[in-house]
Amino acid sequence: MSQDRPQTPVLDRVRLPSDLKALSDRELQQLADELRAETISAVSVTGGHLGAGLGVVELTVALHAVFDSPRDKIIWDVGHQCYPHKILTGRRDRIRTLRMGGGLSGFTKRSESPYDPFGAGHSSTSISAALGFAMARELGGDPGDAVAVIGDGAMSAGMAFEAMNNAGHLGKRLFVILNDNEMSIAPPTGALSSYLTRLYSEAPFQDLKSIAKGAVGLLPSPLQEGARRAKDVLKGMALGGTLFEKLGFSYVGPVDGHDLDQLLPLLRTVKQRATGPVLIHAITRKGKGYAPAEGAADRGHARARFDVITGEQAKSKSNAPSYTSVFAKALIDQASRDDKIVAITAAMPDGTGLNLFAEQFPRRCFDVGIAEQHAVTFAAGLAAGGMRPFCALYSTFLQRGYDQIVHDVAIQRLPVRFAIDRAGLVGADGATHAGAFDIGFMASLPGMVVMAAADEAELVHMVATAAAHDDGPIAFRFPRGEGTGVEMPERGTPLEIGKGRMVAEGSRVAILSFGTRLAEVMAAREALQARGIAPTVADARFAKPLDRDLILSLAREHEALITIEEGAVGGFGSHVAQLLADEGVFDNGLKFRSMVLPDTFIDHDSPAAMYASAAMSASDIEARVLDVLGAARLPARA
Amino acid sequence: MSQDRPQTPVLDRVRLPSDLKALSDRELQQLADELRAETISAVSVTGGHLGAGLGVVELTVALHAVFDSPRDKIIWDVGHQCYPHKILTGRRDRIRTLRMGGGLSGFTKRSESPYDPFGAGHSSTSISAALGFAMARELGGDPGDAVAVIGDGAMSAGMAFEAMNNAGHLGKRLFVILNDNEMSIAPPTGALSSYLTRLYSEAPFQDLKSIAKGAVGLLPSPLQEGARRAKDVLKGMALGGTLFEKLGFSYVGPVDGHDLDQLLPLLRTVKQRATGPVLIHAITRKGKGYAPAEGAADRGHARARFDVITGEQAKSKSNAPSYTSVFAKALIDQASRDDKIVAITAAMPDGTGLNLFAEQFPRRCFDVGIAEQHAVTFAAGLAAGGMRPFCALYSTFLQRGYDQIVHDVAIQRLPVRFAIDRAGLVGADGATHAGAFDIGFMASLPGMVVMAAADEAELVHMVATAAAHDDGPIAFRFPRGEGTGVEMPERGTPLEIGKGRMVAEGSRVAILSFGTRLAEVMAAREALQARGIAPTVADARFAKPLDRDLILSLAREHEALITIEEGAVGGFGSHVAQLLADEGVFDNGLKFRSMVLPDTFIDHDSPAAMYASAAMSASDIEARVLDVLGAARLPARA
Repeated sequence: MSQDRPQTPVLDRVRLPSDLKALSDRELQQLADELRAETISAVSVTGGHLGAGLGVVELTVALHAVFDSPRDKIIWDVGHQCYPHKILTGRRDRIRTLRMGGGLSGFTKRSESPYDPFGAGHSSTSISAALGFAMARELGGDPGDAVAVIGDGAMSAGMAFEAMNNAGHLGKRLFVILNDNEMSIAPPTGALSSYLTRLYSEAPFQDLKSIAKGAVGLLPSPLQEGARRAKDVLKGMALGGTLFEKLGFSYVGPVDGHDLDQLLPLLRTVKQRATGPVLIHAITRKGKGYAPAEGAADRGHARARFDVITGEQAKSKSNAPSYTSVFAKALIDQASRDDKIVAITAAMPDGTGLNLFAEQFPRRCFDVGIAEQHAVTFAAGLAAGGMRPFCALYSTFLQRGYDQIVHDVAIQRLPVRFAIDRAGLVGADGATHAGAFDIGFMASLPGMVVMAAADEAELVHMVATAAAHDDGPIAFRFPRGEGTGVEMPERGTPLEIGKGRMVAEGSRVAILSFGTRLAEVMAAREALQARGIAPTVADARFAKPLDRDLILSLAREHEALITIEEGAVGGFGSHVAQLLADEGVFDNGLKFRSMVLPDTFIDHDSPAAMYASAAMSASDIEARVLDVLGAARLPARA
Repeated sequence: MSQDRPQTPVLDRVRLPSDLKALSDRELQQLADELRAETISAVSVTGGHLGAGLGVVELTVALHAVFDSPRDKIIWDVGHQCYPHKILTGRRDRIRTLRMGGGLSGFTKRSESPYDPFGAGHSSTSISAALGFAMARELGGDPGDAVAVIGDGAMSAGMAFEAMNNAGHLGKRLFVILNDNEMSIAPPTGALSSYLTRLYSEAPFQDLKSIAKGAVGLLPSPLQEGARRAKDVLKGMALGGTLFEKLGFSYVGPVDGHDLDQLLPLLRTVKQRATGPVLIHAITRKGKGYAPAEGAADRGHARARFDVITGEQAKSKSNAPSYTSVFAKALIDQASRDDKIVAITAAMPDGTGLNLFAEQFPRRCFDVGIAEQHAVTFAAGLAAGGMRPFCALYSTFLQRGYDQIVHDVAIQRLPVRFAIDRAGLVGADGATHAGAFDIGFMASLPGMVVMAAADEAELVHMVATAAAHDDGPIAFRFPRGEGTGVEMPERGTPLEIGKGRMVAEGSRVAILSFGTRLAEVMAAREALQARGIAPTVADARFAKPLDRDLILSLAREHEALITIEEGAVGGFGSHVAQLLADEGVFDNGLKFRSMVLPDTFIDHDSPAAMYASAAMSASDIEARVLDVLGAARLPARA
């Protein structure tokens, strides 16, 4: 779907940010236009987060024109808006490898470039990181300024609030650019955001030319004027009213984030004058300058490869439904027969499929914003109040609510249902989004039930199991992407807690699978049968409680037992090992192996390639079986 | 140290909150006075969190007089201020068992009483929980009002902000009492708090009598008056200015939280009228009414048993230094020779010993407030900026920053040093504070180094090891309480990463200890020697990277190998099992056992009693060795 490359005469002269210093303001404007065209062209080839990058093209140019990266640290929150930044920082020649195996990361990444001083992937970390750089500088560490660029959605998360509170207290020079596009990923839902949206029509941009012209200190009068106009929260805070200023920040704005005539003098002024923390409030438009993105509900947040002219995205080839949509449909089915079922998402209604649930049950669906800590404890409160909450989060975002899972859910044995999406390796989003740790950190909690779906039909049953389980917390995990195409049940049937299932009877070696590696296990089994080895295969379904009878009988009846899971050490295989040790099964010998994700963070690639590099594909399983049985490693089936 | 019980004629007539309905306002005042005396008397016997409870005596009486608990849900944030509440809710007869084995919990606890609708221990969860109850009620769950009582320190945490944002958006009836005592645990340090403190002298309490007398709706004019006076952040928010109101809350206050003449009519009014979320801002004094507490720097936050008249606390009998103080001194020693070392605490300067560090190096010590998410990423930023940060947190509070450990520290391999205090079972604070999971959730992270100190001398060396380790993140854990009294080194010496040490040579069985169970292991060894069994004992020091050579040689040279750690399954023992499996050690038989914390949350008691109930004391280790060797279980040494 690649089209002709855009003409980019000014951009062609820029290899590093230092090259911007030689450009006039007028040339910088042209650079921005070319940078926008180049970004659209690149993402049409690679897919990826388009809207966010288009919203910060001018901001990217202005920051690099005014600040001195990499001495000055520009920290992009989440990092998904960094494609223009990557183009300007020596990575243009690789920009059409974005998110591909061996190519550029879709986020900022320290190991990729010195111009990425702090990597990201999850939101709301940039102010904390920038404050760390700023205080390091004050104490004799790396010199240079620290600049955090953070969206309004990310700013509403608790972590950003914590960082602002601390930064204001410390009072050192620090720049926070609030990139206010009235959008996070989905339309925002919090009280903050709804007020925010209303104000734009009322508050025209400040005349920032006056700022540049030698006002002593930072803008007292625009602030006061702003304060009088403030009609709502973030705006109320932002416009000099209370929060940012009272937190110890100087506030500047709002400024049109697409107008270099405003941005450049403003940034030059604050860079010259600031002695303490400064917040610059820039209004931008996600997807700016590309009509198909600007017109979309999510403003082109993340795209598959697409046609530049029409915006039409390349279609996936699979006919199997995605796990996410299977989860959503199964939950809707359960909820249609149980009015106590409610659902919670943290700013990911589309990503978790709960947008579908919300269409059916708008009062019973809660999008709490980027606020996983609150999401979990809110769900616990709902459970304590007699509801049956499903808390749907990605595995890695669930890490944000871990203490709440322990303290508010598990210790109190409250029946919160955790639907853990994006479990295991996720592909193009890479290591920051790899759901590698949830099996371990959930299964170590007393009273927690932990399931993994082997396929999309199993997922339907696990939703039913969770709905029926009122005796404490329960979690089920499932991967990103499409299912295996198995026949789907009409309706889910609750599984017996702590019971696995036999998939294939065999001999000598038993493979006990937890999760969607089962398909690879079965492929390995087929290959092994050609060598005269027919492993027994079972689907554990539960990492906790374990199916004691099944596991002990597999151990007793085979010379080797291999577990496999899409997670790190400390999870399912470790619990099985603990059981086998406690039961004395190792005393007289058992060829036990546990296949887990390797002890490295795996770079982005296709999920299949990532699992191959993790040595967890069918051929790896086959090799492991041969190795454990001491069988000759023959070349693959002749 | 028990003194004569106070005279409490009114309190003696109260067994449950419903009994308060029969009391006049004047009797309620007397009840409050008696409740204060009873609280002081009880804590003098038991020790515990005194200051917080004394600060909310009148609030407790007023809430129970006006609301109908347990139908209405009163949720105490943290829960350490709940002693007066427990006295009024059927638990007076057990109040002198507070925090003792088998006695009342020092926090609210669902399993203890229906008057504790949502337990706590960690801070800033109450608004999320109350919102859960409120939304459950709206959707046909449990009826009744939801009331969160939260301190100003807890309110400044990100999680509370997230909950307010969501509550305001949902707009349903909900009460939040901001218990503003200008203190969290330590004097507050954030920008919010410093502004807050300054205002009290400027903003007299509103005349709340007028509120009670039939104002239609909730207080528009006091709010407007307040807004004009607002001079700073939380106040600026609180006094009708921006935040609480704009978040969708009606704001009422400030009110003198010790004046029942104000509290009672106020609460009656809001209970009668509120249709949406209401924030009531009560000014209280921690330690109120007990001079020794009011005069202390921490206002009597937590006390050992004490003399009621003088306030003098009972002394501990141990001569060994606490692990916390050993950590602090060792860190000060390192920092005196390395000006890149900085320290971060999240509102626990005394608890982590960093108060001592801050005295020596005030510019290099950061108390970020109750903000663990920020604490971790701030430390990551400091590390990226060239500093050597030590992030000192309790094990269970570290859970709050877990995603940041994964995403900002581990993935980026930044050399943040995690000093994990309160690892393992902690005694009187019970299950919410038990550091059971950190070994597992840290050791599963690629590139993380995880150590545990076997005694206080080892801790000194581990501080030195961490200081010297610039090649990625490193963590060391140590327990609450006093050390073992070993001889202390002059100065720490960095340990070789991933190398354990032999402690005692023996035969047949090897015990590999990780952490301070080593003393119990050695006691068990002594007992076993009387039976003719001399186990080999080794101190692993590292759960990651494992000492492969040591472990394999122990496995090769003994018929049995037992690991022991103060943590849950999924941690050290699981990593050892993974290594043994990978190396094929189980293939030909090894009596492997892994002693971990049991799969239950253990109620508060002395740490020794808790470890006994966890079957991890010396006699349990002895029994385990005998069992694994198939030795006859003789009665203890004759």
